Amino acid sequence: MAQPLKIAQIAGDGIGPEVVGASLEVLRAAAPGCGLDYQVTEFPFSAAHFLETGHVLDDQDIQTLRGFDSILLGAVGGLPNDPRLAGGVIEKGILLKLRFELDQYINLRPVNLYPGIETPLKGKTDEHINFVCVRENTEDLYCGVGGYVRKGTPQEVSNQTMVSTRFGVERCIRYAFELAKTRERKHLTLVHKTNVLTFAGDTWHRAFREIAEEYPGVETNYHHVDACCMFMVQRPEVYDVIVVPNMFGDIITDLGAAIAGGMGIAASGNLNPDGDAPSMFEPVHGSAPDIAGQNLANPIATIDSLGLLLRETGRIKSNAAAVQCGEQIGAAVKKVTPKFAGKSLDRSDYGTDEIGKMVADAL
Amino acid sequence: MAQPLKIAQIAGDGIGPEVVGASLEVLRAAAPGCGLDYQVTEFPFSAAHFLETGHVLDDQDIQTLRGFDSILLGAVGGLPNDPRLAGGVIEKGILLKLRFELDQYINLRPVNLYPGIETPLKGKTDEHINFVCVRENTEDLYCGVGGYVRKGTPQEVSNQTMVSTRFGVERCIRYAFELAKTRERKHLTLVHKTNVLTFAGDTWHRAFREIAEEYPGVETNYHHVDACCMFMVQRPEVYDVIVVPNMFGDIITDLGAAIAGGMGIAASGNLNPDGDAPSMFEPVHGSAPDIAGQNLANPIATIDSLGLLLRETGRIKSNAAAVQCGEQIGAAVKKVTPKFAGKSLDRSDYGTDEIGKMVADAL
Ligand SMILES: CC(C)[C@H](C(=O)O)[C@@H](O)C(=O)O
Ligand SMILES: CC(C)[C@H](C(=O)O)[C@@H](O)C(=O)O
Repeated sequence: MAQPLKIAQIAGDGIGPEVVGASLEVLRAAAPGCGLDYQVTEFPFSAAHFLETGHVLDDQDIQTLRGFDSILLGAVGGLPNDPRLAGGVIEKGILLKLRFELDQYINLRPVNLYPGIETPLKGKTDEHINFVCVRENTEDLYCGVGGYVRKGTPQEVSNQTMVSTRFGVERCIRYAFELAKTRERKHLTLVHKTNVLTFAGDTWHRAFREIAEEYPGVETNYHHVDACCMFMVQRPEVYDVIVVPNMFGDIITDLGAAIAGGMGIAASGNLNPDGDAPSMFEPVHGSAPDIAGQNLANPIATIDSLGLLLRETGRIKSNAAAVQCGEQIGAAVKKVTPKFAGKSLDRSDYGTDEIGKMVADAL
Repeated sequence: MAQPLKIAQIAGDGIGPEVVGASLEVLRAAAPGCGLDYQVTEFPFSAAHFLETGHVLDDQDIQTLRGFDSILLGAVGGLPNDPRLAGGVIEKGILLKLRFELDQYINLRPVNLYPGIETPLKGKTDEHINFVCVRENTEDLYCGVGGYVRKGTPQEVSNQTMVSTRFGVERCIRYAFELAKTRERKHLTLVHKTNVLTFAGDTWHRAFREIAEEYPGVETNYHHVDACCMFMVQRPEVYDVIVVPNMFGDIITDLGAAIAGGMGIAASGNLNPDGDAPSMFEPVHGSAPDIAGQNLANPIATIDSLGLLLRETGRIKSNAAAVQCGEQIGAAVKKVTPKFAGKSLDRSDYGTDEIGKMVADAL
């Protein structure tokens, strides 16, 4: 018999435990029908855990997590202005540490308007908002390279460096071309700011042009990141697959989430497509401490991330039951979203647990 | 008698000459009523000029421009894929050179939904879209600091450095506080990405907090740039004044232009508020070579930029006639925009020259 799919659960802070809880209900309901054998192991990594113990995530933790097939993360982060969490200690100590140490070099963020979900844009439907962002996830301004000179004086200078490597850029662009090849439109847009970032932009654009020659079936174009934001609002239908460096990807995918109905439903995967370390799946939203523990959070984004987890991990690990189960969860989510028509998505009118049950029932 | 206001005109490429031409018609119509004495001197700096002569903008040109009170720029830039213009030669050689050499450290970009103009956002009116972005304009990733290692090999690395100085950050933040103080809401938001850009973000956030203490009458908050993009689409009414570093400012102001009706009407000023070099005013749009020379371009953005030029230059140079004239042009623009209701703004249904005449008539 096949090994069970080993999922590490990092529920995290705020609404994290609730939305992860609702997702695992869905998994429990979906697994038997697909013949999926799985086991879930909980880890306490979170801002709360850090405040209690001083511990974020060390090499031993990373080593332990390597033993899993995949990671489901709810949300990590404490109160916005807590001085004990200043300087990105949680972001760098947990989220970015996982992405970098487990070499999850693709941040996959679908931007799809689901049935019944309202977009803030006039006249746009699911035919217009139907693309996917491939965000590079292990380089760029996220490396933490930088420093100060004369900090705290009137002569203070700080530097923050965007690092791009041919290796890192190329593997991300290749992933995006492979993805574009499988889609109906087969169109790929590179988003950067080549007219100002003449070094980083050149490394990206040159690699993009060279790799494009290997994919004659994929149509390509290039947009500056500022123009991209404008297009996303005015004509999102121009996009099919977007490939984008880390920092700009962070920005345009939040905008993507906004046009597709908001944080209540935006799912994402941090992929190590080569499978030599576990991938990690998480909703795009944060820990929302203001609504935590009140059964108000919408778990759709996390349930959909779980669907992505099963589908992508199943593909990487050649686990057909997981792929099937992930696809069923994705389909069930789309059956449930029409019930949100005319309702708020972010502070849901349904309870968190109720929505989980709705998806489980729709399986 | 007062000296005439000396305006340097850089009409530039593509639609630049048309939109600048229409704006100067408006100026001719407006000046006598305000007792404004002015003179306009044309400069040829453009992509076309570069392709002909190999000349962008040298120290002597900068020296000459220093003799002017202000600069009106149409748009510079050639065809999108012209290899002779690769690597940002025009952007860096003309536009950014002017901003940096003339120390235009504020890029002022109002985001206002004008009467009759349609926003792509559902349910939003001029009450919701009514803020102004103060973009730092002389630092950050725009410094051009960076380089390659092993370019062209599989081991290629490129670096691009975001430079922030207390000096540069502080003067920008002070300008934003002074501006916020004059507005009804007196609210200022800092936009950055402090949880990832821990050096640059810290220099900004620390300066922001310190300077805020000098302005107890101004309410402040902080948004990450990704969240800001989401807010701009979902709840733009949260903003009154935004202060933002150069690169993020580039991105959010294009998004701002999009929600306020698009490139056809977005105006901007590159200010040297201390007046020791001329400021420069330009529409946010580019040279749009595809519609150039066909009397199709909408000159409203440039006319409004001219209004801004007169108002801001008038303030800096204590020229009351210029201020009055700028305010009249701004008011006339708002009288004309209702005529665009239901019409395209970007490729205008009216001729470029006709729109100029409409504004002149509305004075
Ligand atoms: C929390 C933060 C570090 C993170 C990022 O910037 O990547 C978040 O915004 C995201 O997009 O996942
Ligand atoms: C043309 C380009 C260099 C410029 C910028 O990035 O600043 C433009 O996008 C703008 O916003 O004025």
